Amino acid sequence: MAQTLTEFDTIAAISTPIGEGGISIVRMSGEEAVKIANQVFKGANLTKVPTHTIHYGHIVDPASEQVIDEVMVSVMLAPKTFTREDIVEINCHGGIVVTNRILQLLLKTGARMADPGEFTKRAFVNGRIDLTQAESVMDIVRAKTDKARQVAENQLQGGLLEKIRVMRQEILDTLANVEVNIDYPEYDADTVTGKQMTSVSQAVIAKIDKLLKTASEGTALRNGLATAIIGQPNVGKSSLLNYLTQSDTAIVTDVAGTTRDTLEEYVSVKGVPLKLIDTAGIRHTDNKVEKIGVERSKKALAKADLVLLLFDSSKELTQEDYALIAATSGKKRIAILNKTDLGQKVSAAQVKQLTESPVIAISILKEQNLAQLEDAIKELFFQGIENSNDQVMVTNQRQVGLLEKAKKQLQDVVQALKDEVPLDIAQIDFNGAWDTLGQITGESSPDELVNELFSQFCLGK
Amino acid sequence: MAQTLTEFDTIAAISTPIGEGGISIVRMSGEEAVKIANQVFKGANLTKVPTHTIHYGHIVDPASEQVIDEVMVSVMLAPKTFTREDIVEINCHGGIVVTNRILQLLLKTGARMADPGEFTKRAFVNGRIDLTQAESVMDIVRAKTDKARQVAENQLQGGLLEKIRVMRQEILDTLANVEVNIDYPEYDADTVTGKQMTSVSQAVIAKIDKLLKTASEGTALRNGLATAIIGQPNVGKSSLLNYLTQSDTAIVTDVAGTTRDTLEEYVSVKGVPLKLIDTAGIRHTDNKVEKIGVERSKKALAKADLVLLLFDSSKELTQEDYALIAATSGKKRIAILNKTDLGQKVSAAQVKQLTESPVIAISILKEQNLAQLEDAIKELFFQGIENSNDQVMVTNQRQVGLLEKAKKQLQDVVQALKDEVPLDIAQIDFNGAWDTLGQITGESSPDELVNELFSQFCLGK
Repeated sequence: MAQTLTEFDTIAAISTPIGEGGISIVRMSGEEAVKIANQVFKGANLTKVPTHTIHYGHIVDPASEQVIDEVMVSVMLAPKTFTREDIVEINCHGGIVVTNRILQLLLKTGARMADPGEFTKRAFVNGRIDLTQAESVMDIVRAKTDKARQVAENQLQGGLLEKIRVMRQEILDTLANVEVNIDYPEYDADTVTGKQMTSVSQAVIAKIDKLLKTASEGTALRNGLATAIIGQPNVGKSSLLNYLTQSDTAIVTDVAGTTRDTLEEYVSVKGVPLKLIDTAGIRHTDNKVEKIGVERSKKALAKADLVLLLFDSSKELTQEDYALIAATSGKKRIAILNKTDLGQKVSAAQVKQLTESPVIAISILKEQNLAQLEDAIKELFFQGIENSNDQVMVTNQRQVGLLEKAKKQLQDVVQALKDEVPLDIAQIDFNGAWDTLGQITGESSPDELVNELFSQFCLGK
Repeated sequence: MAQTLTEFDTIAAISTPIGEGGISIVRMSGEEAVKIANQVFKGANLTKVPTHTIHYGHIVDPASEQVIDEVMVSVMLAPKTFTREDIVEINCHGGIVVTNRILQLLLKTGARMADPGEFTKRAFVNGRIDLTQAESVMDIVRAKTDKARQVAENQLQGGLLEKIRVMRQEILDTLANVEVNIDYPEYDADTVTGKQMTSVSQAVIAKIDKLLKTASEGTALRNGLATAIIGQPNVGKSSLLNYLTQSDTAIVTDVAGTTRDTLEEYVSVKGVPLKLIDTAGIRHTDNKVEKIGVERSKKALAKADLVLLLFDSSKELTQEDYALIAATSGKKRIAILNKTDLGQKVSAAQVKQLTESPVIAISILKEQNLAQLEDAIKELFFQGIENSNDQVMVTNQRQVGLLEKAKKQLQDVVQALKDEVPLDIAQIDFNGAWDTLGQITGESSPDELVNELFSQFCLGK
């Protein structure tokens, strides 16, 4: 086995989250996975067992003959595995020390510590999945809401891959035509082919546009929509924050054992993941007089994709309110008239005119109209995009960048042909668009890009 | 299946630590496990597959036909499973949302949320393991050092169970003899049997004593030895703390992705787990003048199993040093003369005489003699107990309490027979000891005790 490429040596990592739990998994992938596991396993002879079977036994350090743990070992032989290589998974007791001890033993016995994302990278390199599917794997792991999981799952099923492949095929079919014309100029079908190239370019541009339209929602679904709660002191910012974060249905990570402090503060409002900005600031200062109200707001604003702008509807608008309206203009925003239970000195119509934004009148104290506020957030978020279950979305900047590049190349093709540039010159950008789209799926991606992409994965994936 | 006892309904839980990782496991155990899994799984027909096999497919919500995740499902049929019931494990992508979603789907389809420790409880109730083995499962998960893992692993292999069983058998054999004598008083072998009962009681007491001797080390291994670093301001407490916590070999949880803050501050010194007391206090105050030096120390002392008492060897002992020596008397302690690089005004002999404790002269700054300090800690810890790999140790208060009770009962037997109490009266305590020892293994444990014990487990185990 000395000739094995370094790239395909046997890798090992802890594949479950680190912590104390019932079970942890130490995973190996590669030609030697079964052999290495067998050297430290006391139970069945793993080199003789059928694929996709589970075996009870003990991990024993061959040096000291010390039992490390009682385990269940899964043997999955190539090619029907996650990486398309032989995979061995050791399910041990879920403690930090015991899991680490088993990993160390595998490393001592011949496995190499896997790089972050290396298991998924092998699935890609070995042709089981494309780059968009690989990206979706981490998106599923990191999903903050069920809708985000669903979009990622759909991408894993090949939703985006399929759309890209169709576009590339259309370009390829046309290219085949061009080649015929260039090889047999006597046919002189240039005009016909030029027309075809223009119409295919335009058709693909339209498809790209449709995908790009999903990008801001897709990336927000993936990363959370950075949301700033803005307003004067005592307008009810902390009450709104508490409502959003404490309502049972809203909290994203409603799982026993998760620590709220270590996660960013996410809430899910009707499936829209909001990443709340400066929640500590809001919690700590809203009940005191904030001397730096507007200053503080500006900082939060800089990072915000969505602004929830609060007004006290029981008081006349102040200079500060006007300043905040001005400061938040140009942002996606919802104007909120709070304290409707105290009698109304500011009307929704008035604020609507000033802000040109959706206006919702609520009473957080009396819990009035809060459902409408949630609806407004959802509506603003899904504005103009389909909200079906099998929605294909563009979910990251890499995909967006490449789609925009391909679009530009196709626009250049259209323009060139309009300017009567010779077909074989216009073809360069047409070729380029085909290549650019291929980089999205990884069918034409340079190695460095692939390495860079997988290095962002978590360990053991 | 309507007659199925509630106790044996099908339970489900997330069995891996909660967090973001490559893989999470949702586990089910019970008669309906395979049937329920099959209703939400698209792939092989799980009701027809052989035991201990793994199947690729998708979890699909039957209501919406929405794909929840791409998964590998393991089917393990009774009786050769962790619980001795049918077990299905769903390995999904390791995200919080997706894992929770699958669990919710199983609960909707007929499984019940498992109580903490319920999987292990079933393994006990169904007779696969005894109580000491069940306890060791959580000890493995929570082990802070490799030595602690090893002791727990040994207990899981039945090390303690075996020792208890041997003692119970000796008592039982004697009881059989007593019964013969009581039934056939004409034999009148009372004297002979009385002697046997006394000698067996004494032999079992000796065995119990040997086990109890391991208890303080066993429980410390399991929970960490609460350690206070005590000394005057500027004597080097924070330097020692930094040395202990920063040295590569010392940090227990040296695994990528673990958050130091959420764990208590443990260090492993040559396999001895130290749980450091008031590390925040030491870090924050050692470089300032501590006005409340002795007061603060007293608080830390109250909780300490081990005291590391520091002196500045370059200065004469002060009144405060004498106060600290007095305050720490009666504790396991090591006296440490720091700053030996600055010339010595206090001798080891002098401190030895004052403290009657091991004395180590070191320079933390120059890293001199620190290995000797570690050896001293190890020596103090393993004082008087064997340190072999297959050491059977008593590791928790429940075991200690029952061993002490059994010992007392046997002592009463010895005393009663010495006082010539009739054999059938002395026999009551002899019977009692047999029963008490059985409570350690669970062979004679009341239900409430069993419920109480398993409720301390983590979810999914």
